Amino acid sequence: MRTICFLSDFGLADDFVGTCKGVMLKISPGVQILDLTHQVPSFAVEAGAEILQHATRYMPEDSVYLAVVDPGVGTERREVALETSSGASMVGPDNGLLIPAAEALGGASSVVELTNEEYRIHPVSNTFHGRDVFSPVAAYLAVGVGLRELGSEIPLDSLARLDVEEDEASGGEIAARVIDIDRFGNARLSIREYGSGFEYGDELKLDIGDGGMGIRYVATFGAAGAGELILVPDSHWRLSVSINKGSAAKALSLSVGTKVSLKR
Amino acid sequence: MRTICFLSDFGLADDFVGTCKGVMLKISPGVQILDLTHQVPSFAVEAGAEILQHATRYMPEDSVYLAVVDPGVGTERREVALETSSGASMVGPDNGLLIPAAEALGGASSVVELTNEEYRIHPVSNTFHGRDVFSPVAAYLAVGVGLRELGSEIPLDSLARLDVEEDEASGGEIAARVIDIDRFGNARLSIREYGSGFEYGDELKLDIGDGGMGIRYVATFGAAGAGELILVPDSHWRLSVSINKGSAAKALSLSVGTKVSLKR
Amino acid sequence: MRTICFLSDFGLADDFVGTCKGVMLKISPGVQILDLTHQVPSFAVEAGAEILQHATRYMPEDSVYLAVVDPGVGTERREVALETSSGASMVGPDNGLLIPAAEALGGASSVVELTNEEYRIHPVSNTFHGRDVFSPVAAYLAVGVGLRELGSEIPLDSLARLDVEEDEASGGEIAARVIDIDRFGNARLSIREYGSGFEYGDELKLDIGDGGMGIRYVATFGAAGAGELILVPDSHWRLSVSINKGSAAKALSLSVGTKVSLKR
Repeated sequence: MRTICFLSDFGLADDFVGTCKGVMLKISPGVQILDLTHQVPSFAVEAGAEILQHATRYMPEDSVYLAVVDPGVGTERREVALETSSGASMVGPDNGLLIPAAEALGGASSVVELTNEEYRIHPVSNTFHGRDVFSPVAAYLAVGVGLRELGSEIPLDSLARLDVEEDEASGGEIAARVIDIDRFGNARLSIREYGSGFEYGDELKLDIGDGGMGIRYVATFGAAGAGELILVPDSHWRLSVSINKGSAAKALSLSVGTKVSLKR
Repeated sequence: MRTICFLSDFGLADDFVGTCKGVMLKISPGVQILDLTHQVPSFAVEAGAEILQHATRYMPEDSVYLAVVDPGVGTERREVALETSSGASMVGPDNGLLIPAAEALGGASSVVELTNEEYRIHPVSNTFHGRDVFSPVAAYLAVGVGLRELGSEIPLDSLARLDVEEDEASGGEIAARVIDIDRFGNARLSIREYGSGFEYGDELKLDIGDGGMGIRYVATFGAAGAGELILVPDSHWRLSVSINKGSAAKALSLSVGTKVSLKR
Repeated sequence: MRTICFLSDFGLADDFVGTCKGVMLKISPGVQILDLTHQVPSFAVEAGAEILQHATRYMPEDSVYLAVVDPGVGTERREVALETSSGASMVGPDNGLLIPAAEALGGASSVVELTNEEYRIHPVSNTFHGRDVFSPVAAYLAVGVGLRELGSEIPLDSLARLDVEEDEASGGEIAARVIDIDRFGNARLSIREYGSGFEYGDELKLDIGDGGMGIRYVATFGAAGAGELILVPDSHWRLSVSINKGSAAKALSLSVGTKVSLKR
């Protein structure tokens, strides 16, 4: 049986996650459910999409991804499931949450809207499609129900996409933005380490709209002095503007969305 | 092997839940343990009972429910296990926690007090029967040990019950009470949607002891204006007094236990 | 397949734990992973070691313990795995975290440094060896890869150890220290109940460097009056200085590390 990788913004204070698991185990007894995280910030579709995309590097290849960050529940937004060319499946709302992960897995080869009433828990609530629509579909996929059983096929390019600004690289300069501030005050950037073209030890110039300042690109915090402004890769292989033993976000007044440029 | 559905007020900050799982896996290797929630408010037996009862709609039919919200641990309160006529089993303290769930599953067909010392972890601590008494019993039930092996049968009507006020419905008026205030300030009522007799769109009168005010019964928040006082079903199929994009609890000074009446 | 018992200080707010689980399930599909706790205080190696040691009483005998509290990640500290004479395995950083648990399981019979590059996820990050080094090794051990496959054997006495003061018992007096203050203000001591030599009901003398005061040794909180200063065993079978329905830590200004002596 395929593993179900479950991501949501349900939190763990309530019984939401447990109830979804009951629904899945009732349909596919013995299925393994991996909690990726349930603490995506409430309704933060873009943050959830980034975590899901990153996770694809580490999850079993034939996983069924169940992802629910769904501010539009109860409105007209569609419910969808898709298959990737790498052999994974994904289930969730049609709000862009699944797209970056699907692309990281080679792209979606087939998409359906979840219109088949047989694969839902009735009555379907207005507020909790995680339980009533998405969990049952994930469980049916895990035991081998075919994607086309679940509803009618829809064009891949009809899926909603996140309106995410692309990083721009030209002439050795990368224009990017802050996508997250972690609890230590590190400002995580949209730039991935492996696409940056920079090398450890490079003395770079960081510009946040104020004329620019020097920043050193290092492999680890251990390679920097206390209080030094550094560019350092995080565990998601993204670059982070950091101050060793300090808060870069506070020192430079960085927040989610701040535009930055980096060059040699 | 049967699934164990585990609910407690242990929280996740400590190793309590993990230790209980070790005990269970040692007795029944490979058993599947579903965490319903471990964040029932400390010692809140009634809140735990409501979550457990609700969960029975969604859990595998032959589940073993392990439920530990146990303010009386170390006192004379009994430890019990029971079978329901639907084929589920339940294990926990004899303090009313299990009763609403058992009734939702067709009622208890057989109850034992857990007196058989063979099915405990020795030495039994004074403070943690979840680990030493209830978890082993749940694991033995999951692998097929019979209920009567675990102790001596006791009469169903000897079980402790929660002293919960019943809602009263007469002449189109329902007298009920607030059972929970959620983090958004929605006041969840003791009334279940399917027993209310109201219909979406009804203009109702809500009385909280102050003469009464108008409230509209709607299917979703999306059907209400910002700031509108509404009656709306939640994901547990209970009615909730809510203010769209506001806090009904603050606006009306509602708290757990507040009596309300509703009529057309 | 062997159960993996997973302890860390990763918390549950992020996807760290979920990513480690993906790594393990990819290597050993279907393996059972038991979350002991992921809320060890950040970088608190000694606290993690105590929880891990205690857990060994309750976990399946052939468990693979995956323990990651690793303030030295990215420095020269070694990565190790070991086998105990009881048949368990342990994986983690060489910083003392594993030692008390290994000793509780009869001692380490064989230890290796994790030098075999084949059993890692590449590229290995500088900050997250839980994902890239320790999780894969735990998963390979769970499916039967031999310890010596994983790297080169090293002497047991070369392992780093925690610099923990031993309790001293002489002439009926025990010199110990506070190892933890829980959320109720109970001061947990380094003394284990079964080595104390005291008996329930004993009137003892507690000295915290101020001349001493009377304290009664009781089996449960229920055996004490409100406001009474008591010595009471906790669920880890350690003695705790407590005030029934009050905070001993506040009343006596106790904190982690406070030295205490107890005698009849």
